[in-house]
Amino acid sequence: MDATAQIGVTGLAVMGRNLARNLARNGFTVAVHNRSEARTRDLVDGFGDEGSFVPAYSAEDFVASLERPRRLVVMVKAGGPTDAVIEEFAPLLEEGDVIVDGGNAHFLDTRRREAELRERGIHFVGAGVSGGEEGALNGPSIMPGGSAESYRSLAPMLERIAARAPDGAACVSHVGPDGAGHFVKMVHNGIEYADMQLIAEAYQLLRSVAGYSPERIAQTFRSWNTGRLDSYLIEITAEVLAHRDGATGEPFVDVVQDRAEQKGTGRWTVQTALDLGVPVPGIAEAVFARSLSGGAELREASRALPGPVPEPLGEEEAARFADRVEQALYASKLVSYTQGFLQITAGSAEYGWDVDPGAVAALWRAGCIIRAVFLDRVRDAYAARPDLPSLLSDDAFAEEMGRAQGDWRHVVATAAAQGVPTPGFSAALAYYDALRAERLPAALVQGQRDYFGAHTYRRADREGVFHTLWAGDRSEERVDG
Amino acid sequence: MDATAQIGVTGLAVMGRNLARNLARNGFTVAVHNRSEARTRDLVDGFGDEGSFVPAYSAEDFVASLERPRRLVVMVKAGGPTDAVIEEFAPLLEEGDVIVDGGNAHFLDTRRREAELRERGIHFVGAGVSGGEEGALNGPSIMPGGSAESYRSLAPMLERIAARAPDGAACVSHVGPDGAGHFVKMVHNGIEYADMQLIAEAYQLLRSVAGYSPERIAQTFRSWNTGRLDSYLIEITAEVLAHRDGATGEPFVDVVQDRAEQKGTGRWTVQTALDLGVPVPGIAEAVFARSLSGGAELREASRALPGPVPEPLGEEEAARFADRVEQALYASKLVSYTQGFLQITAGSAEYGWDVDPGAVAALWRAGCIIRAVFLDRVRDAYAARPDLPSLLSDDAFAEEMGRAQGDWRHVVATAAAQGVPTPGFSAALAYYDALRAERLPAALVQGQRDYFGAHTYRRADREGVFHTLWAGDRSEERVDG
Repeated sequence: MDATAQIGVTGLAVMGRNLARNLARNGFTVAVHNRSEARTRDLVDGFGDEGSFVPAYSAEDFVASLERPRRLVVMVKAGGPTDAVIEEFAPLLEEGDVIVDGGNAHFLDTRRREAELRERGIHFVGAGVSGGEEGALNGPSIMPGGSAESYRSLAPMLERIAARAPDGAACVSHVGPDGAGHFVKMVHNGIEYADMQLIAEAYQLLRSVAGYSPERIAQTFRSWNTGRLDSYLIEITAEVLAHRDGATGEPFVDVVQDRAEQKGTGRWTVQTALDLGVPVPGIAEAVFARSLSGGAELREASRALPGPVPEPLGEEEAARFADRVEQALYASKLVSYTQGFLQITAGSAEYGWDVDPGAVAALWRAGCIIRAVFLDRVRDAYAARPDLPSLLSDDAFAEEMGRAQGDWRHVVATAAAQGVPTPGFSAALAYYDALRAERLPAALVQGQRDYFGAHTYRRADREGVFHTLWAGDRSEERVDG
Repeated sequence: MDATAQIGVTGLAVMGRNLARNLARNGFTVAVHNRSEARTRDLVDGFGDEGSFVPAYSAEDFVASLERPRRLVVMVKAGGPTDAVIEEFAPLLEEGDVIVDGGNAHFLDTRRREAELRERGIHFVGAGVSGGEEGALNGPSIMPGGSAESYRSLAPMLERIAARAPDGAACVSHVGPDGAGHFVKMVHNGIEYADMQLIAEAYQLLRSVAGYSPERIAQTFRSWNTGRLDSYLIEITAEVLAHRDGATGEPFVDVVQDRAEQKGTGRWTVQTALDLGVPVPGIAEAVFARSLSGGAELREASRALPGPVPEPLGEEEAARFADRVEQALYASKLVSYTQGFLQITAGSAEYGWDVDPGAVAALWRAGCIIRAVFLDRVRDAYAARPDLPSLLSDDAFAEEMGRAQGDWRHVVATAAAQGVPTPGFSAALAYYDALRAERLPAALVQGQRDYFGAHTYRRADREGVFHTLWAGDRSEERVDG
């Protein structure tokens, strides 16, 4: 077999197939391979006229069809299947070849694989790919990790197939070494969970407190989508809310079972944040809200618990309330991005990745689920001040928080009084107020810990580590020598 | 060396030493061993008159000094040191001997160790031991996992050294197989984190909104400690708040640095809950609050963020507000125990442990940090109805929630309006309102997921799995065959 393909894709389920088509449509010759032959044939039969495909029906042929250094994109299930494919192909490769994992791998698996393959002289690129099937075909947001050398080899192709931001920039760049790409993709998904939860809470408030119909809420979201909240998720929320069920004529959102499902990347984000010591209550509450919604028996058993029933507002107050909800949604979203970007900088510091958070924001401006005009501003904030302690420290964002916070507080207080669950809005506000607090009751927690476990404490007024003899005369001793 | 000791303790740092003394004081002959000899000598020299100790200066002597079946308690650091000690002793043991790990191991490590040792005919008991140094000496709460046979062998000793509940029952019982004991101990610690955070929030509200001094708050906590909140943590909180710093004469809580530390079991609890799909926002917010408090630079950079400064209430309103805070604290505590016990039942189901949640509540009534009269009521609730869907389904608890919820909502709304961070109170209320909600906006989330990722949804009105052709004519197709 002649080495004629510039890149190969193995694993031709819908994501792999669409990525291969995207590459071919952009003028690259793409070797395609799948464990079962049928998918390879289907791709060439169905889409062969879109560009130049080289079908391969064995691992050996697939590898032989690739120009050197070989570039193989693996698009199989995360976990065992990815390891199996790597083990199948790695022995056939030579020094300097590049394996790209475009699946949703856990970044720690990517770190392990990258280190193992590096030992064998092979570059391993864990690349987050966001945008689903449609993005894979027409332009995803791509977050590649791995060596700088491997990125140089891949860049010409990735930059062609990636989504384009409004300013024309391709939504791909080298995120950082080893697991950095999959880490950033994981946090992207965590932020996506939080965004969706916040939107869901805004919807519920407009429904229960403002008394709006789903259609009316769709209109509200459409108008929000012309402003600072302009984003793919707000746009599709309006579409979903405006949709009426064909079978019943009822609003679609009223016929869907209210049990949210999840695939695990939100959970990974929170678990990793806990390991890093980064508080991400916005993402955690979103993950918990999905789990809670799925607990049908527990919810059934809890329906009769005492609590208020919201009394919908009159028309004028409702409109005013809807404006307040926009403020609360925006403020909560900004807090949740603050947390997500802090997790990225913490991960980067922990693993020595030197990730540029502004470049990450730029990557997310198109192609992915959380694409939004807001991300231009995030990018600008980090560009203006690369050492920004957090997004909230950006002057423009802080000013917006100043304008939003009165309404935000009103909305959270109203939700509490009226019995509408807003875990995301509430957690975001509590995080915000904790960050800006002059003193936190953590001092009391330290006192409790010293009391029951002699865990010691530090003083605000002098250096050292101290313990109070609580069971004795309550004098204080310095215990750090 | 004659086999004269009924039990042995290896690892004689303060926890191991105190446990050995507790056993000896209760009439058991205790073999004692430590990697470095000095600690063994110190124990016998310092406390030899408290009972019958058999010092051993080698692993072989230690094992030889134990009556069969041998019972060895390992009190070393969790992780590698525990594995090292097991590897040292296991080859010296015989079938039917019992190794007890009294450290704070992760329950998954305990599962692994139990399985490995079971293969070798040795019983491995991962035992949670709570109560700190003082508890180890005078009566801890003990949560042993492992085989029922090993528990029968240990019970006579453990029941003598454990704490006694007010009704005289020993705070020890067989929690369940393999990792059950350490799992339950982990959740105990998670609940402890939540309890401490909720108390800290109550303190902050009394300080900032009621305008009370620490001394006055100490009095308030003392009065609460005579009612349904009667507990060790409330008691020591009053002690800490009443304490004045010797050096400055200031309230102790005002001189302590407000950065809470943590050792990791709270984090484990949340990470495990995420794996089990159990929402535990109360514990998560407590862990996050500690992390946030420790982020000195971020807090420093965020001090100037806009927000209100609480205006302390007048005397009469303050007293009324303090009563409301008691209601909010109690309601939030009940929610957080609800979550913790749901995590225990979920873990038990996942691993097939058959843990009795009422028996766990009984274990925690004395000896451990979260000991409280409240736990009698938890035990009673599960005893009255072993299939209780959650604590909130208990009639008496539900009735209390009904009485508390108005004040609870008022407190959360006030905190939001006044800018006092109450992540624990707020998260508990949101969880409560979500549980009792007739409909949750999870239906919208399912719609969004189907829109952008074809993730499908279920309908409320009929069986099946569905997908809407969002990019097409928006008709609905059933996709489960």
